[in-house]
Amino acid sequence: MSTVALPTGRGLSAARPTSAAGGHTPLGLDRARITGGFWAARQDAVAGGIRWGHEQLERAGNLQNLRIAAGQAEGEPVGPVFADSDVYKWLEAVAWEQARRPAEDLLTLQREVTALVAAAQHEDGYLNSVAPARGERYSNLPWSHEHYCAGHLIQAAVAQVRCTGDRGLLDVAVRLADHLVATFGRDLQHDVDGHPVVEMALVELYRETGTQDYLDLARYFTDSRGHGLMASYGKEPAYFSDRVPVREATTVEGHAVRAVYLTAGATDLATETGDRELLALLERQFDAMWATKTYLTGGLGSRWEGEAFGEPYELGPDRAYAETCAAIGGIQWAWRLLLATGSAHYADAIERMLFNGFLAGVSLAGTEYFYVNPLQLRGGATADENRSPAHGRRGWFDCACCPPNVMRTMAGLADLLATSTSDGLWVHQYASATLESGALAVEVVTNYPWDPEIRLSVTRADGPSALRLRVPAWASGASVTVAGESRPAEPGSYLTLERAWQPGDEVVLTLPLDVRTVTAHPRADAVRGCVALERGPLVYAFEHCDQGADVRLDDVALVPGSAARGEHHPELLEGVTLVTARGRHLDVPEEYRSWPWPTAGGPPEVGEEVDLVAIPYYAWANREIDAMRVWVPALGDRP
Amino acid sequence: MSTVALPTGRGLSAARPTSAAGGHTPLGLDRARITGGFWAARQDAVAGGIRWGHEQLERAGNLQNLRIAAGQAEGEPVGPVFADSDVYKWLEAVAWEQARRPAEDLLTLQREVTALVAAAQHEDGYLNSVAPARGERYSNLPWSHEHYCAGHLIQAAVAQVRCTGDRGLLDVAVRLADHLVATFGRDLQHDVDGHPVVEMALVELYRETGTQDYLDLARYFTDSRGHGLMASYGKEPAYFSDRVPVREATTVEGHAVRAVYLTAGATDLATETGDRELLALLERQFDAMWATKTYLTGGLGSRWEGEAFGEPYELGPDRAYAETCAAIGGIQWAWRLLLATGSAHYADAIERMLFNGFLAGVSLAGTEYFYVNPLQLRGGATADENRSPAHGRRGWFDCACCPPNVMRTMAGLADLLATSTSDGLWVHQYASATLESGALAVEVVTNYPWDPEIRLSVTRADGPSALRLRVPAWASGASVTVAGESRPAEPGSYLTLERAWQPGDEVVLTLPLDVRTVTAHPRADAVRGCVALERGPLVYAFEHCDQGADVRLDDVALVPGSAARGEHHPELLEGVTLVTARGRHLDVPEEYRSWPWPTAGGPPEVGEEVDLVAIPYYAWANREIDAMRVWVPALGDRP
Repeated sequence: MSTVALPTGRGLSAARPTSAAGGHTPLGLDRARITGGFWAARQDAVAGGIRWGHEQLERAGNLQNLRIAAGQAEGEPVGPVFADSDVYKWLEAVAWEQARRPAEDLLTLQREVTALVAAAQHEDGYLNSVAPARGERYSNLPWSHEHYCAGHLIQAAVAQVRCTGDRGLLDVAVRLADHLVATFGRDLQHDVDGHPVVEMALVELYRETGTQDYLDLARYFTDSRGHGLMASYGKEPAYFSDRVPVREATTVEGHAVRAVYLTAGATDLATETGDRELLALLERQFDAMWATKTYLTGGLGSRWEGEAFGEPYELGPDRAYAETCAAIGGIQWAWRLLLATGSAHYADAIERMLFNGFLAGVSLAGTEYFYVNPLQLRGGATADENRSPAHGRRGWFDCACCPPNVMRTMAGLADLLATSTSDGLWVHQYASATLESGALAVEVVTNYPWDPEIRLSVTRADGPSALRLRVPAWASGASVTVAGESRPAEPGSYLTLERAWQPGDEVVLTLPLDVRTVTAHPRADAVRGCVALERGPLVYAFEHCDQGADVRLDDVALVPGSAARGEHHPELLEGVTLVTARGRHLDVPEEYRSWPWPTAGGPPEVGEEVDLVAIPYYAWANREIDAMRVWVPALGDRP
Repeated sequence: MSTVALPTGRGLSAARPTSAAGGHTPLGLDRARITGGFWAARQDAVAGGIRWGHEQLERAGNLQNLRIAAGQAEGEPVGPVFADSDVYKWLEAVAWEQARRPAEDLLTLQREVTALVAAAQHEDGYLNSVAPARGERYSNLPWSHEHYCAGHLIQAAVAQVRCTGDRGLLDVAVRLADHLVATFGRDLQHDVDGHPVVEMALVELYRETGTQDYLDLARYFTDSRGHGLMASYGKEPAYFSDRVPVREATTVEGHAVRAVYLTAGATDLATETGDRELLALLERQFDAMWATKTYLTGGLGSRWEGEAFGEPYELGPDRAYAETCAAIGGIQWAWRLLLATGSAHYADAIERMLFNGFLAGVSLAGTEYFYVNPLQLRGGATADENRSPAHGRRGWFDCACCPPNVMRTMAGLADLLATSTSDGLWVHQYASATLESGALAVEVVTNYPWDPEIRLSVTRADGPSALRLRVPAWASGASVTVAGESRPAEPGSYLTLERAWQPGDEVVLTLPLDVRTVTAHPRADAVRGCVALERGPLVYAFEHCDQGADVRLDDVALVPGSAARGEHHPELLEGVTLVTARGRHLDVPEEYRSWPWPTAGGPPEVGEEVDLVAIPYYAWANREIDAMRVWVPALGDRP
């Protein structure tokens, strides 16, 4: 792999608000570069997966579908109706990866696939290799995913032009978007796609091209939802986020990925149209989601049925759906809210989702994926549905939305690290990296999340400016040292350091990494009486293979306060800090072993002492598939 | 409605083992008659529903489908592919209802619909009004439900001939069964239906007609499962009970109704073939289900996804699926095991399912049904899928399996009360009734389950014989009085009273109805730290509308030992005994009201005292749909 030249200064970001929008500007992948450490290793692993992903798209027929549509091959398209979107998400991943680490082999693949996509486009701009073979164009939008595929095409095209300067895919996207405007714009055809994403995409295309029609169409699609347009399509309107208009909703409901893609797009819309009222409503919806419908891991969507959000506090750990794509959508939404508001809450939320609900979705090797991310698997789990964690991660799925979604997110991850505003540089996430805003460039060196210290060195400074560092809400006892002077830093906010920075200036932020024992909201019935362990941004999990031979993970309770040690094991799971705690076996009283179980038994008996070993949740299921649990009963007086 | 004459002494039972089978013989609906009290009122309510059910079958198109198939009407069949089965279950309900309370109006409907079914049958015996319009015969058996519909037709036909002597439907069933034998018998076409029930039906047709081919075909279908025949039909083989052969299974898995219909049929098979080994395996499977995959209510199947059994102890109360049909299937299975073994455990299980998981499936008025029966509904529940309890019971469903299943079960309920063996009469369930075996006839008078006394008077006695009375496992402190002499009765067994009975002899069984506070198995994570209340055979539930205006049902804990009172309210919910208990509000600590919720809060604070009022679970959702819970956190030291 030889390297290729990259355009710079174009704002290599997935979401790049116009200057009219105010708020934060992302640095882009040319000005925010991960240089090593935790996330660099994850990115490198998934980069291998991107190359392998091309083979999967060939094997599964997605590329052949496009060849058939382009008249280059004979046959019927195969796979799900949204098969094209997997190709587009993969193309988007390739674009971000080109910005991260340019390589000829990827560029060649990118050009080939781009040419194929262009060839599959119809004269009038319509583009879909599967849907028209299975029914009239746009005749079944709640299920046909035609706008959904268009949205992912547009996002890939914007990424491609921003990262490589190549307009090939953008020309396709513009023709497709113009076709959508001509077909649906100004209520010509009053229908919306069952699966949002085109809203986010159209706003971004507006940002890239300046064409107002795209912004208007995004607004039209966003506001058309919530009026029961999809009431007769085999699911409750809530499934499609079509029960309540986004401007009236107070929470999220229905299919989790659909819901958060829609609200992410609506946030873009609010940002670009200066709609403060809509923005405030979306903030309240995010708050409601985060407070009542989010797992400790940042996982979203508790129901398998409909891949959906449940009721508030319906958060059972064993059947948590928490689709990997939902975590990705949640990150996209939180990121857009962060760009619009600069509130540290959203950066905290992104951190929780990134390190846990998202990262668990991909194997350490970068080539196998979870669709579903539960917080508990009982011992001796039997075979289950295709997407069940009981089988472990898989290389690809019939419904392969998650793998290329992980690829594009991982490749573009550096964009989430920092933003700039008129008065300085904001650092949201911590990784070894170089970060550059207009007036200030810094180098970050850290072994986060394993070590508490984050060292920032100024490498360029053009006049006085502010450096703002997020202090996570969990980082009680945080402190900062600037020019040898140390002071406390307030958790849950941005620490502001304003001065006439000089190259060589050093800032050290220290985020204490004591193990925290956390409990859930008392209404989260399914984990009543339980605790979980966290360390820094990481949620921990107990996995069968780390326990002693005599430990029955389904039958243990934890001694609160006993989880004190965090010891790093570079040899284990590509390097993790283990946490150990003391526990006791809970022995099942004899009477439960006879009929009728529910009426006879008393509480369990506290049995022998056991050592319990926890690993970061993201690393589970990389060695074996057996019992795993995040939440463990706590000994003591309750509730 | 005028009455019609009934045949007697034919064994008016759904499952009637041949004399060769040994074991228990059900009395049949002519010799077991409910005369009043609790179940008579429920039966009368559902009897109105049976009449109204005919209108629903007309409205939903099921009858029109048959007219089209019979060449009496033009058009395409509508509704699910198993639409015919709803007609057959309704016909079965009509048959049992004719035995319970003969009426000309039902007889007229029965004759009309029977003639229609006969007219829809093909020359070669094939019968299905929907499947052949949607594909080749038997080309998609995992989903086409052709054997499933045949099974329900056969069950209805057997019921009809037993209850009315009318052979009309039996002739249709025999032609259909002969066609099945000719098509599938002796491995001619090696396929099985995705949804069992034909196994039970074929054994019963063998019992009715003596035709060995039917028993052989039942065995063939039963043993063909479990070898992955359906592996490529869009679901894991476990869904179809096709992962493990029934002779190798150690528990139940997959779609709950399918699983228990299959094991019920296999139990019939074991009974008729004298296969003790198979019977012992089925007993172990039932034990495993009851101990690890059954809700307190007797509800079966915890997963919405696939309407399926979960892992052992995966028993979340809020998303309990617990399909009404699964409780019915569970009762059928337990009944067949009881007939084969005479073990009181199965009668206990039937009682739990009947009074709770089954009965909750139908409204007090007898015309609205739950498909899904959770043990918790949080306050302020929003709209959900078609079958969600958040809407309350419904009159009919697009997938209308449950309503006619409730109808046939309720109409034939008296058959479950008692059996006879060579040495006497066994009473399994308690209701005001007349019960007649060969040597002994008794009249039962009781206000069970509200009052503890069950009075049995001998009305006929032909020589010495045994009267056996089930003493439920929950009935600690039970006693019996015979001829003025009182003695304790051992819970979880049959009390045997052997004597030369005389007409007028009285037996009084007293089953103490103290309120019981029960806990779940310690591995049932979702209800850790909770208790539930039971009284007699009834599981209790707290429903929002019975609590004080200040009580937040989502935030209460119960003071163990405080549930002492059971007071009968004849005016409420057609007469129920209320149970009251003391509780405390659990106040949510302030820190949960700010970000990030999972990491900040401590345990809830114990707040003000509240009175908590519970009603029998079966009666919930008859006044409003709001918060309801069976399991409530208990104050005290745990786990």
